[in-house]
Amino acid sequence: MTDVTTLTDSLPAGTVVTDPDILAAYRQDRAQDPDAGTPLALVRPTTTAQVQSAVRWCAEAGVPIVTRGAGTSLSGGATAVDGALMITTEKMRGLAVDTSTRTAVCKPGMLNAEVKAAAAEHGLWYPPDPSSFEICTIGGNAATNAGGLCCVKYGVTVDYVLGLEVVLADGRAIRLGGKQLKDSAGLSLTRLFVGSEGLLGIITEVTVRLLPPQAPACTVVAVFPTVADASRAVVAVTSQTRPAMLEFMDNTSINAVEDMLAMDLDRTAGAMLIAQSDAPGPAGAAEVALIEQAFRAHHAQEVFTTDDPVEGEAFAMARRVAIPAVERRGSLLLEDVGVPLPELPALVQGVAEIAEKNDVTIAVIAHAGDGNTHPLIVFDPEDTDEARRAQLAFDQIMGLAVSMGGTITGEHGVGRLKKGWLRAQLGDDALELTTTIKQALDPQGMLNPGVML
Amino acid sequence: MTDVTTLTDSLPAGTVVTDPDILAAYRQDRAQDPDAGTPLALVRPTTTAQVQSAVRWCAEAGVPIVTRGAGTSLSGGATAVDGALMITTEKMRGLAVDTSTRTAVCKPGMLNAEVKAAAAEHGLWYPPDPSSFEICTIGGNAATNAGGLCCVKYGVTVDYVLGLEVVLADGRAIRLGGKQLKDSAGLSLTRLFVGSEGLLGIITEVTVRLLPPQAPACTVVAVFPTVADASRAVVAVTSQTRPAMLEFMDNTSINAVEDMLAMDLDRTAGAMLIAQSDAPGPAGAAEVALIEQAFRAHHAQEVFTTDDPVEGEAFAMARRVAIPAVERRGSLLLEDVGVPLPELPALVQGVAEIAEKNDVTIAVIAHAGDGNTHPLIVFDPEDTDEARRAQLAFDQIMGLAVSMGGTITGEHGVGRLKKGWLRAQLGDDALELTTTIKQALDPQGMLNPGVML
Ligand SMILES: Cc1cc2nc3c(=O)[nH]c(=O)nc-3n(C[C@H](O)[C@H](O)[C@H](O)COP(=O)(O)OP(=O)(O)OC[C@H]3O[C@@H](n4cnc5c(N)ncnc54)[C@H](O)[C@@H]3O)c2cc1C
Ligand SMILES: Cc1cc2nc3c(=O)[nH]c(=O)nc-3n(C[C@H](O)[C@H](O)[C@H](O)COP(=O)(O)OP(=O)(O)OC[C@H]3O[C@@H](n4cnc5c(N)ncnc54)[C@H](O)[C@@H]3O)c2cc1C
Repeated sequence: MTDVTTLTDSLPAGTVVTDPDILAAYRQDRAQDPDAGTPLALVRPTTTAQVQSAVRWCAEAGVPIVTRGAGTSLSGGATAVDGALMITTEKMRGLAVDTSTRTAVCKPGMLNAEVKAAAAEHGLWYPPDPSSFEICTIGGNAATNAGGLCCVKYGVTVDYVLGLEVVLADGRAIRLGGKQLKDSAGLSLTRLFVGSEGLLGIITEVTVRLLPPQAPACTVVAVFPTVADASRAVVAVTSQTRPAMLEFMDNTSINAVEDMLAMDLDRTAGAMLIAQSDAPGPAGAAEVALIEQAFRAHHAQEVFTTDDPVEGEAFAMARRVAIPAVERRGSLLLEDVGVPLPELPALVQGVAEIAEKNDVTIAVIAHAGDGNTHPLIVFDPEDTDEARRAQLAFDQIMGLAVSMGGTITGEHGVGRLKKGWLRAQLGDDALELTTTIKQALDPQGMLNPGVML
Repeated sequence: MTDVTTLTDSLPAGTVVTDPDILAAYRQDRAQDPDAGTPLALVRPTTTAQVQSAVRWCAEAGVPIVTRGAGTSLSGGATAVDGALMITTEKMRGLAVDTSTRTAVCKPGMLNAEVKAAAAEHGLWYPPDPSSFEICTIGGNAATNAGGLCCVKYGVTVDYVLGLEVVLADGRAIRLGGKQLKDSAGLSLTRLFVGSEGLLGIITEVTVRLLPPQAPACTVVAVFPTVADASRAVVAVTSQTRPAMLEFMDNTSINAVEDMLAMDLDRTAGAMLIAQSDAPGPAGAAEVALIEQAFRAHHAQEVFTTDDPVEGEAFAMARRVAIPAVERRGSLLLEDVGVPLPELPALVQGVAEIAEKNDVTIAVIAHAGDGNTHPLIVFDPEDTDEARRAQLAFDQIMGLAVSMGGTITGEHGVGRLKKGWLRAQLGDDALELTTTIKQALDPQGMLNPGVML
């Protein structure tokens, strides 16, 4: 085992942790990969210079690095590797809002919710809102190009990142982009690093664009007899307008959430849709009417519309807790497949068939408005046959999405759990190109080995 | 000189052109670089397979390639290089709008205006609108990540590109992305190729996202005594709202346009701003009022507001013809510098000082709402001293923008004309990273040699 003394000595006391009890808590991320390794040590830097020291030490010692934000990854991207140094950004904190440029310069360990709150203090808005926004970091969001609920209208993380500071595999720190809104100088390196899942460098600062506050939203909730009706209603809405939110839950997830929150959801519904419109004035009224009509035209049994932000937020929250709620029923294999919108009904139908064929429970929730679904495959890890069938279903769903011209991951990233399917989606050449870029930037393969590639 | 017979024979008759008269017309682009070279031959492929044949032939023969869309580049990106093969996409035509996914799959030689028109036929909208939209190609737009007038609110080309087909330096054709709206699988290769100025591959197909049609816009036009007043008015507007257009013209450009169009612009004005709001209903009225007020608070002498789309378009057109209008006064060195918005007044002031110091005329127009200005340095190429002073001013303006944390190019790209300044902006490390990626993808340096790097 590599001796970390020189590393420990080069950093402030307490920065390098080797206590096995603490290390244990950092082995897995939210994907809870049972094959997670045991890290050599954990580093909790507070500055970019400390990150550089750790990376240089690793380069010298030939020790691989796993970067970790808050560890909410659902694809195993922050899972420990045996003998690797784990670098967590949790102590890299601080944030400065600049109202004149409408930007915020954030240290990577700031939580998404903290960025939102700081922006709001200045009457501004940071839109990207992964369901995990209260517990995930802005650095992790940039590294995974996180999506969320409002992304159907407001875009994903990359649409807000104007600048980055990144520590490369050789320990150099580079600054990319800045506070200017438009910039065509050189290759789009900022955009390349967003979504690179820690493969190309460690993000040590993120400059994000802020918007004026979102207008008050009107929420439309409806229950449908079948998932087919609900998914067709989604396509009917999105072919006419771009709502500020359009989320989907099936019967299993409705019941799981109702067990957790007891908020009087309809346990008999085949599916539920939660839509929001934040268009102002008559345009908003027209959009709400259009959504209600599309829902009714697809057999909505009940359509409930409210201007009350508290009521609206209660439904959004119901959708956001769906993953932890379903998790109470067993271990999960978490899908993140996306398809072009017209394929959504066929995807949802196909997932149901895969569940039946493999005799497993699959709860489906979705950022339906952009075609991004999360089939949650529930299984008992003690039941080896069920675990095997769950894995079969997991593979089949990704195969189905790819066959529809879709993606194996709409927002969670490839991580460790989906890399077996990346070639099927990208094709040999695009995968090779990905590898070429990884090798050019990290020739020793030090950063997040085993993630994505 | 390399013999092109084998290339000519491998492609349909007429695809390879060596007629010097025709070649002459392809030597320069709109930057009119006097140092443009003479190409070995011109290839006008109609299919991706033909592009691949040409690229493979070049790789074999060691012949560099210059890719050309419509040649409207203002940074010399499509300028011929002695002995290079010029590949133009002008005959790669065709476009399919898919209303169900709200996308258009475009061959690279389609003009931006044709993409807009095809979308409009289906009641949809392709927003990016470079002033050259009637004469530039969608492939060129993707290669330069083109901006335009509505980009202040609606973003630039990269915000609309969902998928690409690209022919790499070794002749392989790869497909990236597709019609799905969200996709986190693998590195962001699509976004890396957008804005890569032909350095990494030849774009042979572009899949763009379309929006519902833009709501009718209200136009607010005002003239100001000084450029300082007008640029401060811009910051006052943008710190409160994000209009659908916010364009700037100074006295010189107003007069140049008035000479050309005789539309009764105020020739005595120090500057003019043209703003649009497309927010619907009361929100629109509020935005218009806010703009009018910000203009008046900064000494607007006349504020003219109109809901008439024809009148509004006339002012937008006045702004769009500014470059050709100023070009009538002499040769141009065309800047494209951008700064964080609060720096706009200081930039405009600094440009005036640079004009005075070097005794040259500099007309300033700007996509002011996103801090992106086009100082147009007018000079007489026969007057060698003036040409020298113009070049000095050109360099000083880029230096000024960089010193303000801005960019040497907001939208036109680095091309050949601005590469001397790229290091100053990016820094050694980011420039080296750019070179690393270029070398990884094009180890022979075949694609657009001399552009950007
Ligand atoms: C209940 C729940 C709901 C969720 N909902 C959503 C959702 O709606 N949308 C969505 O997109 N995601 C969602 N996620 C997934 C997850 O929250 C996101 O992927 C998030 O962006 C991860 O942030 P993190 O700080 O936890 O990063 P981690 O999980 O620690 O790391 C994620 C990946 O990024 C890398 N990484 C982290 N920080 C850095 C850095 N500073 N530099 C370089 N690489 C880094 C890691 O190596 C890893 O590969 C959800 C997760 C949970 C548990
Ligand atoms: C009057 C006028 C106004 C303008 N206004 C604007 C404006 O408002 N905003 C703006 O952004 N630009 C503007 N431009 C600049 C120019 O129109 C844009 O840069 C446009 O995107 C270039 O398109 P093109 O087809 O003419 O490409 P070209 O000029 O032929 O090429 C531009 C660059 O892209 C490369 N390229 C072209 N096609 C491909 C391809 N298929 N694959 C790979 N590389 C390729 C070329 O090698 C070159 O480096 C203006 C130009 C003029 C003349």
